[in-house]
Amino acid sequence: MSDTNTNSTVTETSHVPVVLIENVNPNVRNMEYAVRGPIVARAAEIDAEIKSGVKKPFAKVLPANIGDCHATGQTPITFIRQVIALCAYPELLTSPEFPADAKDRAKRILAGCRGGSIGSYTASPGVEVIRQDIAAYIEKRDGVPSKSEDIVLCTGASDGIKTILSMLMTGKTGNERAGIMIPVPQYPLYSATLTEYNAQPIRYFMNEENNWSLDISELRRAIEEAKSKCLPRAICVINPGNPTGQVLTRQNIEDVIKFAHDERLMILSDEVYQHNVYAKGSEFFSFKKVLMEMGAPYNRHELASFMSASKGFMGECGFRGGYFEVVNFHPSVKACLLKTISVKLCPPVAGQAVIDCVVNPPVLGDPSYDLFMKEKTHVLSQLKEKATLVTELFNSIEGIKCNTVQGAMYSFPQIFLPPKAIEAAKAKSQTPDSFYCFSLLEETGLCVVPGSGFGQKEGTYHFRMTILPPLEEIRIQVNIVI
Amino acid sequence: MSDTNTNSTVTETSHVPVVLIENVNPNVRNMEYAVRGPIVARAAEIDAEIKSGVKKPFAKVLPANIGDCHATGQTPITFIRQVIALCAYPELLTSPEFPADAKDRAKRILAGCRGGSIGSYTASPGVEVIRQDIAAYIEKRDGVPSKSEDIVLCTGASDGIKTILSMLMTGKTGNERAGIMIPVPQYPLYSATLTEYNAQPIRYFMNEENNWSLDISELRRAIEEAKSKCLPRAICVINPGNPTGQVLTRQNIEDVIKFAHDERLMILSDEVYQHNVYAKGSEFFSFKKVLMEMGAPYNRHELASFMSASKGFMGECGFRGGYFEVVNFHPSVKACLLKTISVKLCPPVAGQAVIDCVVNPPVLGDPSYDLFMKEKTHVLSQLKEKATLVTELFNSIEGIKCNTVQGAMYSFPQIFLPPKAIEAAKAKSQTPDSFYCFSLLEETGLCVVPGSGFGQKEGTYHFRMTILPPLEEIRIQVNIVI
Repeated sequence: MSDTNTNSTVTETSHVPVVLIENVNPNVRNMEYAVRGPIVARAAEIDAEIKSGVKKPFAKVLPANIGDCHATGQTPITFIRQVIALCAYPELLTSPEFPADAKDRAKRILAGCRGGSIGSYTASPGVEVIRQDIAAYIEKRDGVPSKSEDIVLCTGASDGIKTILSMLMTGKTGNERAGIMIPVPQYPLYSATLTEYNAQPIRYFMNEENNWSLDISELRRAIEEAKSKCLPRAICVINPGNPTGQVLTRQNIEDVIKFAHDERLMILSDEVYQHNVYAKGSEFFSFKKVLMEMGAPYNRHELASFMSASKGFMGECGFRGGYFEVVNFHPSVKACLLKTISVKLCPPVAGQAVIDCVVNPPVLGDPSYDLFMKEKTHVLSQLKEKATLVTELFNSIEGIKCNTVQGAMYSFPQIFLPPKAIEAAKAKSQTPDSFYCFSLLEETGLCVVPGSGFGQKEGTYHFRMTILPPLEEIRIQVNIVI
Repeated sequence: MSDTNTNSTVTETSHVPVVLIENVNPNVRNMEYAVRGPIVARAAEIDAEIKSGVKKPFAKVLPANIGDCHATGQTPITFIRQVIALCAYPELLTSPEFPADAKDRAKRILAGCRGGSIGSYTASPGVEVIRQDIAAYIEKRDGVPSKSEDIVLCTGASDGIKTILSMLMTGKTGNERAGIMIPVPQYPLYSATLTEYNAQPIRYFMNEENNWSLDISELRRAIEEAKSKCLPRAICVINPGNPTGQVLTRQNIEDVIKFAHDERLMILSDEVYQHNVYAKGSEFFSFKKVLMEMGAPYNRHELASFMSASKGFMGECGFRGGYFEVVNFHPSVKACLLKTISVKLCPPVAGQAVIDCVVNPPVLGDPSYDLFMKEKTHVLSQLKEKATLVTELFNSIEGIKCNTVQGAMYSFPQIFLPPKAIEAAKAKSQTPDSFYCFSLLEETGLCVVPGSGFGQKEGTYHFRMTILPPLEEIRIQVNIVI
C-alpha cells in the first residue's frame, strides 16, 4: 500500500483530481456533435443579452440549428396528446371532454401494459400491441408483409441506431476493426457513435452537383480505399437526407441494395423523415419495400430500418419515441439483439404511445379523424411551402447556392467565401464555415450549424438551417443578410 | 472486386447471412442480464398455459423477478399523474377536475420547455427548473450545498451509470484496461455494462454473515489482486443494496470514501433506493453528505450519485426518469460529460417531469398534500411490512436462510441444496440455483431470479425475490414451498 500513501499525501497538500480530461476515455473525449455545439451556447448568451436590454440588429435569436419542431412554434397533434393524457391519468377515461377514439386507444395501450399502468416496464422491445400496430403500418405502407416480432421500439431513433451499430463492432483494431459506411454530409450521430465505438468511418460523398444524389461509383471508391484499413460491415443511408434533404429514387435504392449485397454489408436505413417529402416528382420508397420487391437473392439481405416520433408531422422530440424493423436477421443475431436491449429494460412508454398514434392514426369516420387530418396536413403543407421558399431565398443571395429541399427538414446551402473571410477565420482559429455561422448569428440572430459539423468536400463551405421556424420569421431574419 | 463476386455467387446458391452470432461484437454477445433471463420467458409460457386451461398447483404466476412496482399492483401517485396529464395536454389547465398545485407545477415545467411543449427537446442535462428542484432536494436532504449545474437528468439511472462508466474506460487492454470495483452480489447492469465496454470488473464480496455488510478489508483484497491485471478507476456502491437489501452505516460510508480516496478511485453511488429504508436503526446517508462532512481532503473527492423515478414510493419505471449529481468533477471533465450526452439529445421529458414531482412534492397547505402523503405513506408502509414478513417467511422454511431486508425492494435468501439437487442440476446443465428457481416456478408459480445472475460466493446458492407483490399473494405462493 506504499504507493497509495504517496498519493494520499500528494492529495492532502495540493488536490489532484482522480479524473482529468487527459485520462477520460479517448473515444468519448473525441466525440463531436455539432448540432448542439458552441454556436448554440453563443445563441443562448445573445438571447440573454437581448433580455437584459442590449441592442441588436434583430429582435430575437431564431433557432434553426436543430430539428426541434415544437420549439419553433409547431403545435402538437391533439389526438396524440389526448391519448398520452388519458394513459397517464386514466381517471380522464370518464371525462366527456375526450373523444371516444382517443379513449379507446388509451384503453388498448393500457391493456398492453403490466398492471394497466404506463409506469410499468414494458417488454424490452416494447408493448406488443404497439409492435403489432407498427407492423401493420409498415405492411400497409410497403405492400409487403411485416411481423411484430421484427419490430423493436427504442428511445428515439438514435438509440436504435447505436444498438445496431454496437452489434457490428469487432472488438479488434487494425484492418479487422469494424468499418461503417456513412454519407458525407451526414447527421453527426453517426460520426459521434463511430468515434465512441472506435470504428472506422468509411465516408462516401453525396453528389452536390446532382442535388445531393447518391452515386454508386462513389460507394465503390470509398469501400475499395477502406478495405486495407478495416473490415467493412454496414452501410448507413439517410433517406430523406439529413442535412442534405434529397429523396432517393427507387432505382438508386435498388443500386445501393445490390452494392450492399455484393459487398456483404448490412444496410441501416435511417428513414425518420419518411413523412417529410415535398418536391414534385419525389416519392418515399422504403429500403424494405424495394429489397423485398427485388426478389432473390436481395430479398434475404439484412436490413435495419429506423423511424422516430420526433420528425414527420408530429415532431414529438421530447417523448423520445422511436422504433426499428429488423429484416432478415439470423435468429441467433436477433436473440442476441433482444438480450442486449434487455439491459436497458425498456424504452419510455409514453414515447411508445406516441409512436402508436403515428402508425395507427384515426381513420375516416372516427371522431378525431377530421381534426387529426387538418392538423397533420397543416404542418406538412407549411413545411412544403418553406422547403421551396427557403431554397429560393438562399439562391437569391449572392455567394449562396442551395439545392432543392426535396424532403426532411433542412436546407444545406453552399456558401462561397471571399479569401478575406477565410483569412479572418484562420486568424480566429475557426473553420471558415464556423466563422461565417458565428457572424451570421451576431448580425442576423439566425442560429445555424456550420457544415463542418456534418462533413463536406474539402474547400467547400456550407451550413445547415432547419426549415422549421415560421416563414415570416425566416424571411425577416434572412433579409438582413441580403 | 473478384472476392465480391465470389461472395455474391455463394449467396445466390445457398444464402449466407452477413451477420451471424459468431461475428457479432463479442462484448455485446457476452452481455448477460439475468433479471430478464430465460426464467422470465418460461414464466410467460406458464401464464399462457394456465390461460389455455392447463391445470397447475397455483392460480397464476407471481412475477417477483423485477422491481416493477405498478406491474404487481402498486398504484401510481395521483399528483404525479395529474402533472403529467396536464403537461401532455395543457387544455386541461382550465379543467376544474385538477387541483391548483398540480396545474401550477405543470405550468412551471412547461414554462421551462421550449415552445411551452414537452414535445420539444430539452437541454441535454434536462430542464433547468427541474435541475434546480433536484439541487434543492439534495441540499435539503443532506444539509450541504448542491448546484443545478451539477445535476444531469438521464433515461433512468441505468443510462446515467453507463454514461459515467463510459468516460472512465481507457480504450486500452492488458494492465492498462480500466478496472471498476463492483459488489458481489450486484445488480447485473454493472456486470453487463463492463462486459459491453470490455472493462475489468474488480469484484468485492459483500459479507453475508454480517447482513451483507461492506468490509473494507475485502475492498483491499480485491483491489490488490486486480492491480496487476488492470488500472482501477472507480468503485461502484449500491446503497441501499440491490439485490442484498442492506443499508450502509455512516461509518461504513466514511471508510469507503477513505479507501476510494487512498486508491484514487472515482465513487459511483447508486442511491436509487434512498426512499426505501425499513429496518429499525437503519438510516439512509448519501455519499455526498458524508463526503462533504468529512472535510479535507475527502470533500474534494469525485463522486457521481444516481437516483431514479422507478423505485421509491413512486415506482414510475415506464417513464424512464433518472438523474445524477456530479460532485467535484474537474471542469474539463464536466464539459466533456455535457458534450457526450448532447449526442443523445435529451432524456424523455415526461420522465423529467416525474422526477420533478418526486423531488419537489406538495407541501403542507397545498391542495394535493394530504392525498400525496397518504399514498406515499401507504406504499412505503406496505413495503416495510413485507420486508419483515418475507424475511420471517423465508427463515421459517428449512433449507433457506434470509438476511434482514433493511432497505430497497428485494430479499436475497441463501438456499442450502442437497447433493441430489446439485447433481440433478448438473445433469440438466443448469447451475444449481437456476435449477432451484425453475423448479420453484413450475411448482409454486413464483418467478424469482437465480443468485448466479447477481454473483455469489462459490458453493453458495441464492435467489432474488422482490418484495413488491401483495403480501397475501406472496404468502399463498410461498406456503406451497413449505
